[in-house]
Amino acid sequence: MHLEYIKPNPWSIIEEGWNPEHVKSSESLMSLGNGAMGQRANFEEEYSGATFQGSYIGGVYYPDKTKVGWWKNGYPEYFAKVLNAPSWIGIKVKVNGERLDLHTCVSVSDFRRELNMLYGTLDRSFKATLKNGVEVSVKAQRFLSLALNEVGAIKYSIKPLNQDATIIFEPYLDSGVTNEDSNWDDQFWNTLSVTDDEDAAFITAHTMKTNFHVTTMMRNRLFIDGREITLSRKHKTKTSYQGAIGHKEETTTYIGHEYETDVKQGETFTIHKFGGYVSDLNHAKENLQTASTIVLNTAITQGYDAMLQAQKDAWAQVWAMADITIDGDVKAQQGIRFNIFQLNQTYTGVDSRLNIGPKGFTGEKYGGSTYWDTEAYCIPFYMATKDQEVARNLLTYRYNQLDKAIENAGKLGFKNGAALYPMVTMNGEECHNEWEITFEEIHRNGSMVFAIHNYERYTGDYSYIVEMGMEVIVGVARFWRQRATFSKAKNKYVILGVTGPNEYENNVNNNWFTNYIAKWCLEYAFAKAEELRDNHKDDWKRITGKTKLSFDEILSWKSTAEQMYFPYSEEYDVFLQQDGFLDKELVTVDKLDKSQRPINQKWSWDRILRSPYIKQADTLQGFYFFEDNFTTEELEKHFDFYEPFTVHESSLSPCVHAIQAAKLDRMEQAYKFYLRTSRLDLDDYNKEVEEGLHITSMAGTWMSVVEGFGGMRVRNNKLSFEPKIPDAWHSYSFKVNFRGQVVKVEVAKNKSTFSLDSGDDLEILVNGEKCTITVAR
Amino acid sequence: MHLEYIKPNPWSIIEEGWNPEHVKSSESLMSLGNGAMGQRANFEEEYSGATFQGSYIGGVYYPDKTKVGWWKNGYPEYFAKVLNAPSWIGIKVKVNGERLDLHTCVSVSDFRRELNMLYGTLDRSFKATLKNGVEVSVKAQRFLSLALNEVGAIKYSIKPLNQDATIIFEPYLDSGVTNEDSNWDDQFWNTLSVTDDEDAAFITAHTMKTNFHVTTMMRNRLFIDGREITLSRKHKTKTSYQGAIGHKEETTTYIGHEYETDVKQGETFTIHKFGGYVSDLNHAKENLQTASTIVLNTAITQGYDAMLQAQKDAWAQVWAMADITIDGDVKAQQGIRFNIFQLNQTYTGVDSRLNIGPKGFTGEKYGGSTYWDTEAYCIPFYMATKDQEVARNLLTYRYNQLDKAIENAGKLGFKNGAALYPMVTMNGEECHNEWEITFEEIHRNGSMVFAIHNYERYTGDYSYIVEMGMEVIVGVARFWRQRATFSKAKNKYVILGVTGPNEYENNVNNNWFTNYIAKWCLEYAFAKAEELRDNHKDDWKRITGKTKLSFDEILSWKSTAEQMYFPYSEEYDVFLQQDGFLDKELVTVDKLDKSQRPINQKWSWDRILRSPYIKQADTLQGFYFFEDNFTTEELEKHFDFYEPFTVHESSLSPCVHAIQAAKLDRMEQAYKFYLRTSRLDLDDYNKEVEEGLHITSMAGTWMSVVEGFGGMRVRNNKLSFEPKIPDAWHSYSFKVNFRGQVVKVEVAKNKSTFSLDSGDDLEILVNGEKCTITVAR
Repeated sequence: MHLEYIKPNPWSIIEEGWNPEHVKSSESLMSLGNGAMGQRANFEEEYSGATFQGSYIGGVYYPDKTKVGWWKNGYPEYFAKVLNAPSWIGIKVKVNGERLDLHTCVSVSDFRRELNMLYGTLDRSFKATLKNGVEVSVKAQRFLSLALNEVGAIKYSIKPLNQDATIIFEPYLDSGVTNEDSNWDDQFWNTLSVTDDEDAAFITAHTMKTNFHVTTMMRNRLFIDGREITLSRKHKTKTSYQGAIGHKEETTTYIGHEYETDVKQGETFTIHKFGGYVSDLNHAKENLQTASTIVLNTAITQGYDAMLQAQKDAWAQVWAMADITIDGDVKAQQGIRFNIFQLNQTYTGVDSRLNIGPKGFTGEKYGGSTYWDTEAYCIPFYMATKDQEVARNLLTYRYNQLDKAIENAGKLGFKNGAALYPMVTMNGEECHNEWEITFEEIHRNGSMVFAIHNYERYTGDYSYIVEMGMEVIVGVARFWRQRATFSKAKNKYVILGVTGPNEYENNVNNNWFTNYIAKWCLEYAFAKAEELRDNHKDDWKRITGKTKLSFDEILSWKSTAEQMYFPYSEEYDVFLQQDGFLDKELVTVDKLDKSQRPINQKWSWDRILRSPYIKQADTLQGFYFFEDNFTTEELEKHFDFYEPFTVHESSLSPCVHAIQAAKLDRMEQAYKFYLRTSRLDLDDYNKEVEEGLHITSMAGTWMSVVEGFGGMRVRNNKLSFEPKIPDAWHSYSFKVNFRGQVVKVEVAKNKSTFSLDSGDDLEILVNGEKCTITVAR
Repeated sequence: MHLEYIKPNPWSIIEEGWNPEHVKSSESLMSLGNGAMGQRANFEEEYSGATFQGSYIGGVYYPDKTKVGWWKNGYPEYFAKVLNAPSWIGIKVKVNGERLDLHTCVSVSDFRRELNMLYGTLDRSFKATLKNGVEVSVKAQRFLSLALNEVGAIKYSIKPLNQDATIIFEPYLDSGVTNEDSNWDDQFWNTLSVTDDEDAAFITAHTMKTNFHVTTMMRNRLFIDGREITLSRKHKTKTSYQGAIGHKEETTTYIGHEYETDVKQGETFTIHKFGGYVSDLNHAKENLQTASTIVLNTAITQGYDAMLQAQKDAWAQVWAMADITIDGDVKAQQGIRFNIFQLNQTYTGVDSRLNIGPKGFTGEKYGGSTYWDTEAYCIPFYMATKDQEVARNLLTYRYNQLDKAIENAGKLGFKNGAALYPMVTMNGEECHNEWEITFEEIHRNGSMVFAIHNYERYTGDYSYIVEMGMEVIVGVARFWRQRATFSKAKNKYVILGVTGPNEYENNVNNNWFTNYIAKWCLEYAFAKAEELRDNHKDDWKRITGKTKLSFDEILSWKSTAEQMYFPYSEEYDVFLQQDGFLDKELVTVDKLDKSQRPINQKWSWDRILRSPYIKQADTLQGFYFFEDNFTTEELEKHFDFYEPFTVHESSLSPCVHAIQAAKLDRMEQAYKFYLRTSRLDLDDYNKEVEEGLHITSMAGTWMSVVEGFGGMRVRNNKLSFEPKIPDAWHSYSFKVNFRGQVVKVEVAKNKSTFSLDSGDDLEILVNGEKCTITVAR
């Protein structure tokens, strides 16, 4: 654990006391998002201390030119990067001519921030003494509207405490922004127009290369002690150099409205700032100005308080479905709510063009927004806590990128419609450039199909497979068929030169997980082909026509699957993570000196590679995905063999282990894994929270509770539970949306309660026994 | 073959006719060097067409900040880069006010360049018509003095052909130069002073970070029709921005002397320009100006013609020892001389701080100057064609960098004085940053020891081992002892996670070559330790004291070597290149469609890795190094197994195969490999000659003739030959310096002649039979 300053609280993330060293961490932890946009918890007023400024718009990205040490054929020339967007939250404050800046104030006291997860609001308050002797008290509240997802609202108040003072608010927009992680210091934005319209202002800019057009907007209201006032304003602008490299021009990229008034000691001067973005993702380019005027009008007509109430209502709706309560362990409670809150801030599921970025709207790191994390870790959360349309949208996202996946496979030499989904992407194109990942971590392709299976299994909705999914399944099956090669020496199909989920092995042969998911995909594709041929004749005709699929090809999937090779040790009676695993020095992690950890910071890459240490579940990931194909005894044997070598240096590792430890009745271990996953960012285990949060692994935390402790599975179209509870907890509860019905599960020591909100009776399995839940009437 | 414009000629590289598309290729092919400095064959006069300007100083480098896509622990933060040095060869020419520039002339005729390898000179001549209608004829000759290795000389003449003309020569120095391959567009040089002194000028500049101080100099003489004249001159300067990033300042970085005179139609105006570098590698910083004045004085006192004669004499001395004649095959003759010439231009062996850069003085590509190429490919050439001190200097270079090699191993987690020599280096520090090479291509470490063995075997000089070599042997043995780990599964020592000489396999287990050279090093270290303990007691005490070497440790080397694992196939009765090689789809290269080659340009990296295709000799490299440990039948079996999978996409591959094919009496195949290695650059097989030449592989060409066709070996302190001759040749000859005696070998069809220049009778082996060579008196 690296940080411990966040106060334990069931519904809020609270920082108390002024510590400049926490600024960047809190900026990450208290980020706000509404699915369409988001931003780090940067201060509204100027701050000259260390800060990481960031504001992001879902779906708006920049293809940054690839930077590598040594070029390899097949690397993408450009890749899509999360883009720091023009800033709209800023309000410069001057008190008797001096800038308010916490970094330069004489003293700061009563500093407090609270991210209120129940309401989706960020509050901040402090007292400060400026160099000119004026003491002020400041309160700021901000939220990004869930209901009106193109706007956010800020209420910012200042009160002079020891004297009357002349105070200036200068709310502003600024498109002169850059990315900290730009590869070549490109300018990502080009500003087209800056418009000033009474109490509103607009900056229209487009991204270079991708040419997304975005209007950033603001409109402001002023109050003294709650009474609205009108002040004349000065118009302020600034310029910066923008445009393509070699063609930069000095452009106006800043507009501020300066409001000055005399405020008596004890009086409160308040500004309501409404702002945000409209973009050509959702409006015609030529209508952006009109659209932004309309949306600002809507906001200002509602007013701050009504918008705030709508925000609380919207979050109440989210929590009504998604909340997990934990009684008796406030840090665990805070952890799980933080995870659920951030997942909902990142992705609301209404737009199939968007996905769940690994840092959400909390930082720039990692190009692209979509990893196999979505399919492997996130879909269960969204399936169970949202309408099933949301998970379907996530699947549709991949269907829409199938052509690019086929193109991507083509670059690596695969033919006839074989599809390889990229490791990281924004628009379907690959955004990663380490050969051992980009070209070799191909197991990701299996997750695309697993997610389809998982969706069908959970929702019972077959229509996605018929309408879109089968084409994805065919593309992926074709890939595996070609990628598996026949070894005469083994008389089996082998898959050479891969990186498994455990990225601490590169370019290995016959990674068990990869071979297994490949075999499974081929079998699944064969089975679905048979089903469609028998039961959906017209659709099957359309699909085989479009994909030019022959019966011989389908048969070849089956025979390849049947002859797939799996490395296995007779001595240990376990499958081997890959060929040659037993040649390693098998020293378990507990024998490693603490000074050597985390090994990814202490060891050179070759040393990591030849060690037996596992970054995240690999063989066990397969036992998680395909649990029903193995006995509990087999799971136990593999868990006992592999977990001792696992260093869990991926945020995606502890959740799978928590689920499996719980299944094996090792509740103490399961609880330890749970804490590690749920408070990863709050406690900053990996010393990197300043860069942003680990959003996708948060879905794993949810799985730890629901699938781990709750033991939830879907078996033969029925929900099944095997509830367990960690010693430290009195009770916990969660809800899942299962095929239109909401099942509430409450687990206490020695007692579990299942209830339904509405609808017909529902038969479920509890510890293997059939039970029927009836709606209380 | 890509290029065919070079005229076949036994002693010269000749280009005839003006073709701007050949400029960059010829700039590489006709590069000049004298071991201390070198430069591409850039024109003296201005040229506004496509050109790659380059001038280089041996031992002067810049640590460029590393550029990678994804950082891995252990990567060097900076690495040493071959540095484009201030230019001294330039002479601007104006004719009636118009610049002479072949790119803008109305017409160019009779263009001819010749790199005369017998004399070490570069000649160029052409006729050109300028836009102003003046026709001129130009002759230029240039050389870099072998005798006086800080200077070069240029004789540049112009004759107006169709009218009288006013002609300006502006010889200049320019330190405002940059590298084309700079990672971050750093300025590598900072100019300290520009000095003007009558007919001479000096620019003193230092490299950023490494702080090498270099004075670039020139002094000029003018002639009309051979009569020296004196002209008043105008002083010209230019500025550029230099200095550290963020602190650049406008600095004078150019000085020219403008000489103007009226030249009558048919008269010849000539300039002799003497120039070059003195650096603080060889002089005290504060004396650079004095040193440069002295060296220029020496040159100018001798005069151009005397210096030229000295140059011819010096090259005659080189050729007297190093020449290989081939009768009946002018292209083969030209090829071998080109290789020998470039090797001698690159490294003369007088300075143990220098080494044999892979591009010599012909281009910037590749950071660092020293690869395992030196130990594996170059040492035999320098041993046989130079005084043995030269090879000893190359060994000493590594001894001097032993501390850095120990530091380098430490970064990768090795202890107790284990040494890992870098993959690429300038000063002992690693200059490469691909993990699969930098950290894993560790077989290079074995070559350091093999070269010591090779040197001892050839020269009989044991003193290097006693004085320096044993410490290197100990460091390397310690590395192998620690790097080999014990596999319980195999009950053997294994070496996991390596890249062998065949870089088309990465991170493999038990690469046969690596395991073999590791075992060999351990055994050799054990044997040398025993010898020193028995025969050099005092030295042994010093060495064990310094290295803290215990008897137990030495014993552990032996036991590790004895238990080393080697992958082997019973089916094919061959050692396997690495574990799992037989799992590949074993389709031979001849079955590959031509459109797919070279695979390193056509295929993505993963596809190359999982293919069976071999970039350069790997298992066969081991059979080359350790030939005596295997029977010819074993060699044949391995050659027949591996060569069909070898694509020879490394310049270092064909030579080893030529030697082995010759040994196996496959002369047609051997000849094919020979042509590929000897004319690699002249015919531009790899379509990259514009970037510079493949210097180190040129030593492999020499080996192809001497060890391949000549069958030369050293066995029990005796030279041994098994001469063979390709069908296309009438005869060939070479000389080798063996322990102070020069043996000349002449091979004709069915007849070989061996002769000695001087000294005692020498017993040699010819086709296994003892013969005695006597000096003809």
